[in-house]
Amino acid sequence: MANVYNFSAGPAVMPREVLEQVQKELLSYKNSGMSVMEISHRSSLFADIQKDAESNLRALMNIPDEYDVLFLQGGATLQFTMAPLNLAINKRKIGFVDTGHWSQRAIEEAQLIDGISVNKIASGEDSNYTKLPKIDDSLQENVDYIHVTLNNTIEGTAFRTVPNIKGQSIVGDMSSNILGQRYNVRDFGMIYAGAQKNIGPAGLTVVIIRHDLVEKAPELPAMLSYKKLVAKHSTLNTPPVFAIYCAGLVFEWLLTQGGVDAMEKRNREKAQLLYDYLDASTLFQSPVDVESRSLTNIPFVTGNAELDNQFIELANANNLVGLKGHRLVGGMRASLYNAFPMEGVKKLITVMEKFELEHKHKEVG
Amino acid sequence: MANVYNFSAGPAVMPREVLEQVQKELLSYKNSGMSVMEISHRSSLFADIQKDAESNLRALMNIPDEYDVLFLQGGATLQFTMAPLNLAINKRKIGFVDTGHWSQRAIEEAQLIDGISVNKIASGEDSNYTKLPKIDDSLQENVDYIHVTLNNTIEGTAFRTVPNIKGQSIVGDMSSNILGQRYNVRDFGMIYAGAQKNIGPAGLTVVIIRHDLVEKAPELPAMLSYKKLVAKHSTLNTPPVFAIYCAGLVFEWLLTQGGVDAMEKRNREKAQLLYDYLDASTLFQSPVDVESRSLTNIPFVTGNAELDNQFIELANANNLVGLKGHRLVGGMRASLYNAFPMEGVKKLITVMEKFELEHKHKEVG
Repeated sequence: MANVYNFSAGPAVMPREVLEQVQKELLSYKNSGMSVMEISHRSSLFADIQKDAESNLRALMNIPDEYDVLFLQGGATLQFTMAPLNLAINKRKIGFVDTGHWSQRAIEEAQLIDGISVNKIASGEDSNYTKLPKIDDSLQENVDYIHVTLNNTIEGTAFRTVPNIKGQSIVGDMSSNILGQRYNVRDFGMIYAGAQKNIGPAGLTVVIIRHDLVEKAPELPAMLSYKKLVAKHSTLNTPPVFAIYCAGLVFEWLLTQGGVDAMEKRNREKAQLLYDYLDASTLFQSPVDVESRSLTNIPFVTGNAELDNQFIELANANNLVGLKGHRLVGGMRASLYNAFPMEGVKKLITVMEKFELEHKHKEVG
Repeated sequence: MANVYNFSAGPAVMPREVLEQVQKELLSYKNSGMSVMEISHRSSLFADIQKDAESNLRALMNIPDEYDVLFLQGGATLQFTMAPLNLAINKRKIGFVDTGHWSQRAIEEAQLIDGISVNKIASGEDSNYTKLPKIDDSLQENVDYIHVTLNNTIEGTAFRTVPNIKGQSIVGDMSSNILGQRYNVRDFGMIYAGAQKNIGPAGLTVVIIRHDLVEKAPELPAMLSYKKLVAKHSTLNTPPVFAIYCAGLVFEWLLTQGGVDAMEKRNREKAQLLYDYLDASTLFQSPVDVESRSLTNIPFVTGNAELDNQFIELANANNLVGLKGHRLVGGMRASLYNAFPMEGVKKLITVMEKFELEHKHKEVG
């Protein structure tokens, strides 16, 4: 088996110990004679999986009791529709902080709902989304909530602290940095995250929502209704049992690793090593403003698309995979989620140094 | 490890060979050095998984080219909302064949959508849903489509042939018997099925839909729009990679087993063995009309709730698990999906005979 470092932005690398446990008990979960994929979602075996997953997630993120935790399907993209349907119910208007592709997708989906309007309260467009915008306080009025993409997977920016938006509920898309850095859940009305980056396999979405917002939501189709899903503890219909099981194992693994604070420390160390190399390099550079840089998604370029492709080939040949940048921005991207090891960052830098030596010039900047 | 027979209605037993293959390649899919859970949904590895899964499903079900195949999330329950949103667009009225719980849930969800009305064109209510209703041709007018639950998981009834409804598109919920018996796809406008019974792990929904219906659908939020999901080949956002991979392995397994016709033959044999025993028993009986009986979900009762519970305990003690009937109907239920072996049916009957000998009286009927 190739010893590979997987820099994919998601689905992404998972903790080796978790994968080994999944493999070990795949044919018989807890000596039941059944695979975890075969057990009923109404069985006590699954009830325990879900209960433990929720309580461990609550412990990891310090989720207060007044917040509900949901394990759903449909990815963050379905939340782009569910959040407006459930929460944009009085002013029927949502404030958006435009930080690039995924925030724009959230805006587009909100605008598809009859009667909902949106208000961009800030935009990073001027910097081509390489810098996080300042929030304009004067534009915050008359909205039901403010939507913020905490970490921008494609652009490589992240809010290291939550924007201070007075008197408004913040709905935060935390898909690509949940559990990778510490946020205060009480700063949000709702948090959502697709699992396939820092939580587990694709096919699971975690929603953390303040209970008063759930209570106020209108009558909606069941699978789009936070109220109905909360009432049925995420098992309104058959939940994605295997994905929840894997997420639960990842949560346990995170606790053994020291939790979110320990993860953030490690993520800072991994990211800093790569940013330091990029800032000193005569060939590679980070396009992202220093203060806006993500800990988990680090785009970089040579400034020459042909050289970028050559580097990606060299990296692949060295078992460094998934480094091709998103098609919208090109270049390279290293996604350094919780399960990505420091050794992989060091190996990447070694290969970058080798490539730099062979191509001693900086094309841009 | 206990040698268990798993009669669960879903999530349900999967083919042993499939589980063993998943286990074997869990840490490194196709020698990539990555788990299938870790590979990008934009990688050629996943593109091949999805392409093969779709082409094998098309082969198994003889799906004509004019039908699209989607691999979605959210279960059949989300389809209760998506089908009306996408297809009930002209007359804004849907005809329903009421065959029990799941058809009623489909009706309830359709009624939650503004402007949609429903028309029950037939109902099994008179028989307490132990018998499939005759379709009343005179009630079929002025609807966009007719919704039929092909197999009723809770009540244990199934349409062995598709109701002959002239000039209407049929939308068929095939969750609990897809690939378990032969239907002609051309008899339907759309077919949908949650995966967790005959396809694979929970967290995947298969939709098969005639392309002209997709084309006519209105503008909708992305994750609720067949048109947008078809345009992006089910990868509008990150799909449930692992569940699609498992489904693909199950489709391959079905082909090696002789396909749907061979499965139907086996399922008829398994079901007949149990029905024959039930019809001859002095203690147990099937509550379901002979002509309406499902091949995959077989409820049975003693007529005495206390005896039912004693039997379920005895069965559990004999490693026959998941036999407790659905809470809505009580009693017992044996779900005999494709992956459930004949040996398990024989073992069940042996234990039933033993119990019958100890309780020689028939309480009902």
